[in-house]
Amino acid sequence: MYAVILAGGSGTRFWPKSREQLPKQLLKITGQGTMIQNTLDRMTPVIPPDNTWVITNENHALETCRQLKPMGFCPSRLIAEPVGRNTAAAIGYSARILSESDPDATMAVFPADHAITTLEAFCELLQRAKTVAKKGHLVTLGIKPLAPETGYGYIKQGQALEDGAFKVDRFVEKPDQQTAETYLKESGYYWNSGMFVWKVSTLLNEIKIHLPELHAQLDALATNTFEAKGKYPYRMLNESGRNIFSSLKSISIDYGLMEKSNNTAVLPANIGWNDVGAWTALADVSVKDSRGNVIAGNVIAVDNSESIIQGGNRLVATLGLKNMIVVDTPDALLVCPKDQAQDVKKIVEQIKLEKRPEAVTSMTEIRPWGSYTILQKDANYQVKRIEVLPGELLSLQSHHHRSEHWTIISGTAQAQVDEVSHNLTRNQSIEIPQGAKHRLVNSGESPLIIIEVQLGDKLDENDITRYEDKYGRA
Amino acid sequence: MYAVILAGGSGTRFWPKSREQLPKQLLKITGQGTMIQNTLDRMTPVIPPDNTWVITNENHALETCRQLKPMGFCPSRLIAEPVGRNTAAAIGYSARILSESDPDATMAVFPADHAITTLEAFCELLQRAKTVAKKGHLVTLGIKPLAPETGYGYIKQGQALEDGAFKVDRFVEKPDQQTAETYLKESGYYWNSGMFVWKVSTLLNEIKIHLPELHAQLDALATNTFEAKGKYPYRMLNESGRNIFSSLKSISIDYGLMEKSNNTAVLPANIGWNDVGAWTALADVSVKDSRGNVIAGNVIAVDNSESIIQGGNRLVATLGLKNMIVVDTPDALLVCPKDQAQDVKKIVEQIKLEKRPEAVTSMTEIRPWGSYTILQKDANYQVKRIEVLPGELLSLQSHHHRSEHWTIISGTAQAQVDEVSHNLTRNQSIEIPQGAKHRLVNSGESPLIIIEVQLGDKLDENDITRYEDKYGRA
Repeated sequence: MYAVILAGGSGTRFWPKSREQLPKQLLKITGQGTMIQNTLDRMTPVIPPDNTWVITNENHALETCRQLKPMGFCPSRLIAEPVGRNTAAAIGYSARILSESDPDATMAVFPADHAITTLEAFCELLQRAKTVAKKGHLVTLGIKPLAPETGYGYIKQGQALEDGAFKVDRFVEKPDQQTAETYLKESGYYWNSGMFVWKVSTLLNEIKIHLPELHAQLDALATNTFEAKGKYPYRMLNESGRNIFSSLKSISIDYGLMEKSNNTAVLPANIGWNDVGAWTALADVSVKDSRGNVIAGNVIAVDNSESIIQGGNRLVATLGLKNMIVVDTPDALLVCPKDQAQDVKKIVEQIKLEKRPEAVTSMTEIRPWGSYTILQKDANYQVKRIEVLPGELLSLQSHHHRSEHWTIISGTAQAQVDEVSHNLTRNQSIEIPQGAKHRLVNSGESPLIIIEVQLGDKLDENDITRYEDKYGRA
Repeated sequence: MYAVILAGGSGTRFWPKSREQLPKQLLKITGQGTMIQNTLDRMTPVIPPDNTWVITNENHALETCRQLKPMGFCPSRLIAEPVGRNTAAAIGYSARILSESDPDATMAVFPADHAITTLEAFCELLQRAKTVAKKGHLVTLGIKPLAPETGYGYIKQGQALEDGAFKVDRFVEKPDQQTAETYLKESGYYWNSGMFVWKVSTLLNEIKIHLPELHAQLDALATNTFEAKGKYPYRMLNESGRNIFSSLKSISIDYGLMEKSNNTAVLPANIGWNDVGAWTALADVSVKDSRGNVIAGNVIAVDNSESIIQGGNRLVATLGLKNMIVVDTPDALLVCPKDQAQDVKKIVEQIKLEKRPEAVTSMTEIRPWGSYTILQKDANYQVKRIEVLPGELLSLQSHHHRSEHWTIISGTAQAQVDEVSHNLTRNQSIEIPQGAKHRLVNSGESPLIIIEVQLGDKLDENDITRYEDKYGRA
């Protein structure tokens, strides 16, 4: 049995913690690890990590590999999409790749950013889903409703099949409040969780019938892939493949396939599922204090109730809040009442409209070689903390408009400046003159941390000429 | 006519912008300048800046001089208190000093951190107050009540004097709501503004009668002063003087003198006065947007009303707030409903209880030679931005536990390391080894800005041995 984790979320509703470059699945929101780490972890009793595929945007591929590889995930099983084209394209493309190595595989599909609290029940359910899928059904895990939710699609059960599953009578769009209340009272309605189990051969057949345009492109996509260079050899599309993928119709698997197929089954699930769709979900999936608050980070809270207060490094002091959300990050802060949590996207839209960076990036930027954090940015100087992972190196590069001063905080650096190479350790520093060809290598076995002071009249990430790059960016 | 500005506020109610080391009067809260700058500025048509004295805690003396000197204030007229001993001590000590140079002076007393919007009326009132004071009265400016305030003391007018003034019938403690409403309905009650005008000779006589213990110490205080070294020769107390001042009874001028004297007058004032006693006062003294918000700084606000949102450098995003206060600073943030603005002191108490720094200091620390800002602090390294004012210099010093790396961002530095002196300008850097005697001098005419990277196993401001210091700290 194989898993495909769909990690395509943009996560605007968890702004400011989530950004375009660091969506929800890559964040620690609840539980031990990040959302995608938790997703991988919870299925290991049934599906081992090296049987797991992940499909995600190419911008998130490196960080996803970095998070999952230590858990046993094999980076060559990460499939990078050049653009998002909804779940039908992502699932079809993944299934086609998976079928190359095992055409008889059973494939389970999981969103990367949901929470499930009842792990034993979840694993037992997966085993049953596999049995039902083996018989040729497209199985959806249907969550038993606990409230008249209007934010989910519903599935109406039909006749009983074996193993506790039912034929699907029909899929229902997100209902209004009254309809949702009716669904809750009648039995036999389930929330569509976006979790599916099927034989990959069944799925590809159904795609051929219901999504023939997609099906016609799958072979071409599979032949136009290559392995990324560097530490994480994830699967990328070449130029032709990118063009094909970009031309795919953006449609969900539910609308494009599940609602049309006669072969669908629903398996009722009671597994403590939560789609963690907005900050308010933290109150459902976290430990609350005696007054109903979910408080984390550097917070002094006096006389608050029913609030979600997520501090960071700085002190967040809250006084007399009720039903409020406060989320702090190094470069952006959110304050809103709980009942407006769904409208956080309005803030993100406004930020994008003003062409500000806070919707896309955060103070810490992830790079193939590690990451950097901006400590201060001014008109003609900038201070960064740079972390280079063991064995990694920045490109051989030069800058037209700035010089750089590096001071080594920890680790071992090999710093090349023009033709000269310097070995540097803690408490040593070096200047990179404007225009000099230079390169920074972590030549040790622990992370290399340096403080960089940039001076120049134009401080811009685009002021870089790359001569050689391990990661193919030259 | 002379002014004495009382700048003894601790300003906890404006946390997190105000800190023990940077109280409200030194902050720009409303208007063009800082509160104390505005206080000095508004009286200049009647009292020139070089006729103005300021009495403040010695911790705030340098920053106060720095703010006021460019406006014509003479730093030798700043009187530094070693500790706060309430208004009777501050006023008595100031009056004694002032009487040395002009025993016939008329002296006006103003709190440093109030707002007045009707400047012409204020100046006209001061002129009249002077006339009344010349006749031997202790004149209080009494604010005509606009609401049944329970947070102020009240003054009941007695028989009419000349120039629109009245004898004081009595001073009244802060009333309850019902009493305050009665005062508002009846005429002849005024808010006690803490602004006074009197002849210095009258005041000292009255102190002799009603506060004899204080009066007995005034000569000793005056003879135990000396001028501070450095750029701002403000008046300090020597060890004997400090002991005397510390032993003074902490009592307000209202309770200790005004309520007891038979010689008090009240001059009704309609001058747009506000004591700016809490964040909510911003709504009274600032320009509001069409939905009643007072918004400043780096803020994206969607659908807020009647709220006070004070951003800093980081983005503050607020959504759907109503009657809320959000104040952001580099190291601390406050969120509370407007109706709890008076309880911000509870937060400050909690911070002190936890022995955290955010009640006392902020990320930027003021020093005699300039200031520094912590950009990042970690267990074994720290990054600072240091600004040295023209002509100023740090002490000749050494550190047991850390080395320092300086990179010059702007200005001209003379850096002495052990016996060698280096002249450095933008884009040059230097290492100060652990244990080396060193000194940093701004040898140019513009501010010197450097980035300092400290490395060490113990990063503590107290790890400093001073060999020479311009400011007497060696």
